Amino acid sequence: MIYITRRERFNAAHRLYRTDWSLEENERVFGKCSNPNWHGHNYELYVTIKGEVNPETGFVMDLKVLKDTILHEVIDKLDHRNVNMDVDFMKGKMASTEVLAMEIFKQLQPHIQRHHAQLHSIRLHETENNYVEYLGE
Amino acid sequence: MIYITRRERFNAAHRLYRTDWSLEENERVFGKCSNPNWHGHNYELYVTIKGEVNPETGFVMDLKVLKDTILHEVIDKLDHRNVNMDVDFMKGKMASTEVLAMEIFKQLQPHIQRHHAQLHSIRLHETENNYVEYLGE
Amino acid sequence: MIYITRRERFNAAHRLYRTDWSLEENERVFGKCSNPNWHGHNYELYVTIKGEVNPETGFVMDLKVLKDTILHEVIDKLDHRNVNMDVDFMKGKMASTEVLAMEIFKQLQPHIQRHHAQLHSIRLHETENNYVEYLGE
Amino acid sequence: MIYITRRERFNAAHRLYRTDWSLEENERVFGKCSNPNWHGHNYELYVTIKGEVNPETGFVMDLKVLKDTILHEVIDKLDHRNVNMDVDFMKGKMASTEVLAMEIFKQLQPHIQRHHAQLHSIRLHETENNYVEYLGE
Amino acid sequence: MIYITRRERFNAAHRLYRTDWSLEENERVFGKCSNPNWHGHNYELYVTIKGEVNPETGFVMDLKVLKDTILHEVIDKLDHRNVNMDVDFMKGKMASTEVLAMEIFKQLQPHIQRHHAQLHSIRLHETENNYVEYLGE
Amino acid sequence: MIYITRRERFNAAHRLYRTDWSLEENERVFGKCSNPNWHGHNYELYVTIKGEVNPETGFVMDLKVLKDTILHEVIDKLDHRNVNMDVDFMKGKMASTEVLAMEIFKQLQPHIQRHHAQLHSIRLHETENNYVEYLGE
Repeated sequence: MIYITRRERFNAAHRLYRTDWSLEENERVFGKCSNPNWHGHNYELYVTIKGEVNPETGFVMDLKVLKDTILHEVIDKLDHRNVNMDVDFMKGKMASTEVLAMEIFKQLQPHIQRHHAQLHSIRLHETENNYVEYLGE
Repeated sequence: MIYITRRERFNAAHRLYRTDWSLEENERVFGKCSNPNWHGHNYELYVTIKGEVNPETGFVMDLKVLKDTILHEVIDKLDHRNVNMDVDFMKGKMASTEVLAMEIFKQLQPHIQRHHAQLHSIRLHETENNYVEYLGE
Repeated sequence: MIYITRRERFNAAHRLYRTDWSLEENERVFGKCSNPNWHGHNYELYVTIKGEVNPETGFVMDLKVLKDTILHEVIDKLDHRNVNMDVDFMKGKMASTEVLAMEIFKQLQPHIQRHHAQLHSIRLHETENNYVEYLGE
Repeated sequence: MIYITRRERFNAAHRLYRTDWSLEENERVFGKCSNPNWHGHNYELYVTIKGEVNPETGFVMDLKVLKDTILHEVIDKLDHRNVNMDVDFMKGKMASTEVLAMEIFKQLQPHIQRHHAQLHSIRLHETENNYVEYLGE
Repeated sequence: MIYITRRERFNAAHRLYRTDWSLEENERVFGKCSNPNWHGHNYELYVTIKGEVNPETGFVMDLKVLKDTILHEVIDKLDHRNVNMDVDFMKGKMASTEVLAMEIFKQLQPHIQRHHAQLHSIRLHETENNYVEYLGE
Repeated sequence: MIYITRRERFNAAHRLYRTDWSLEENERVFGKCSNPNWHGHNYELYVTIKGEVNPETGFVMDLKVLKDTILHEVIDKLDHRNVNMDVDFMKGKMASTEVLAMEIFKQLQPHIQRHHAQLHSIRLHETENNYVEYLGE
């Protein structure tokens, strides 16, 4: 069993708020992250898969296929977008890094399995000082 | 003469577009950077000042004063904000990294001079792959 | 279950030595790390907590609370200090990165639990080439 | 139990190909990584060991000994070399990052055990976007 | 006048040697960099252009055009290649970082001028500890 | 003319204070940087030299010679030391990053000239957020 990690990046706007709360309540809980006119981040996404090494190629999974899968299923939907407004799999959900990491896991898992590997974890960096990691359970 | 550089960071949303152009024209020129629902970045700002070393303190300028000046004049106005909508000194201007760097230079210059140092340059990183530098002329 | 990591930094002096050993013995075992006039580091501290995501906020724990806890319980006591001489929770202990990481874990654990999350690990970087990680057992 | 990680680097040439495949077949599977005239990388190697802290020294293992072991057993054999042609422990094996990480693990394990610590993992970065991790089983 | 910098990367093999010198003479002057079976690097290339900001777009030069120019004229020729053997503009030249930076400057200069900007400098990083910069004269 | 930069690192303790000032006056001007029991940093030193490329070797100056010069003249005197107490060329001087950079320049300049190159600048990073640069005049 060996673990392979691929990093991809996306630049997106987001905002933390609940539509069922007042502006004041949102600001009390989410502070400047609830700014009504949005703010944004250069997100860094680390996707880790695991599996056995194929003795013929020395690969667990072709890295080009892994990269294209991440771009097609995740990055193309998030990059230069608004996480709250533009992303189908985030509709109606809190745009926190925690929830975003969990939803990215769900997006990628079936596509990794199709290539005979397992999705091990999603690590998502919001800034150089904060990141979250989700292992699927 | 010695050069001192201080790095600060801010996370902001922005969009490249002209109100006097159609959506199509904006997209043709600015591509995904003109997404109507905004995107965002973790901007890194490097402020370089220059001056003579004060023989009494070994300083060109007290770094704490430099930091507080950058926070008060620039970061507090940009962090967790929308560059196009929320920032007084960017009103009516293109929110490109080039223009933002030039305007930050104008914001800081008088405050640095007040402390007997000179503002040498503003370097502004939009992503790990792109940055601009402005020397004031 | 999701993992959240917060990075904080502190700049401190330290020295590796035993008072019950001679200078020669200290130098034989600890080499230049036992220099009697101290040396120092820019330490990077990564605090990882884990817990369930609160469905109301999308958070495991408010990051601002996590940050303030780390600053109050750890950084304020270590930053711009001497690890051997100035830090209450390191008195009488070896100032190695290993021991420092374990003691920081003990400092933080009760404060994280108070906020309904668990402290998962402390990772402490002494240089860009060396770090230790402690998971509490 | 505490984990200590040491980073070392090596610059090497390599190529992904099978001698029992045609040039076309190699290029179809390995793409530009099979270029017959080689390409190369600045590899970053993270070696993580684990063990109990020695109460006398505050160490799991003397970091200088760990560093010298990695240099002698791994870096001296790989740095400024051709992974496919010059490295005894890679002869006849695929020069993929996966296989290289596994073979480095095998090289180091007996030498770490001799110092009363355990080799926990080998993490090997090929580029800033790709790395593999191997835990020995 | 404002300066824009774009980073691109390429992974290549190379070797320092002179065909008119013996193996011993090459090794005496170039050390391990002359290993006959090659070694390699993850090169980082920083291309800095300068010019006036176009008031209509806020740009000196469209960054997408700059990126495509660097990819087409430089990266496609160097990435996953052997600098000594595979690169037309390096034929018969020493594959040192110095010479490579100067030749990349010559490759890019006419293409930047065509877009009404000036090539200011080429900075080329061979490792995290070594880089060269060339300003064209 | 081409510029070559070499990075080296050193870990040192220091303190900002004047012996002719009271403890209170030192603390008022230098804040926590004047802590009597010292603090410390992982300093990063960038040495930039310039010169013509030697057509025989493709080098301005042999990087191994540059590295050894920096280690012998600067790093060996500063690494794992106390800047105020242990370093001959800093005796009686303020241990600020500004003064340290200027003194390192003076240490290195004659040794670079001996190798037919010129010392262009010293850049010294105290933390990831602060650095100074000195060009010798």
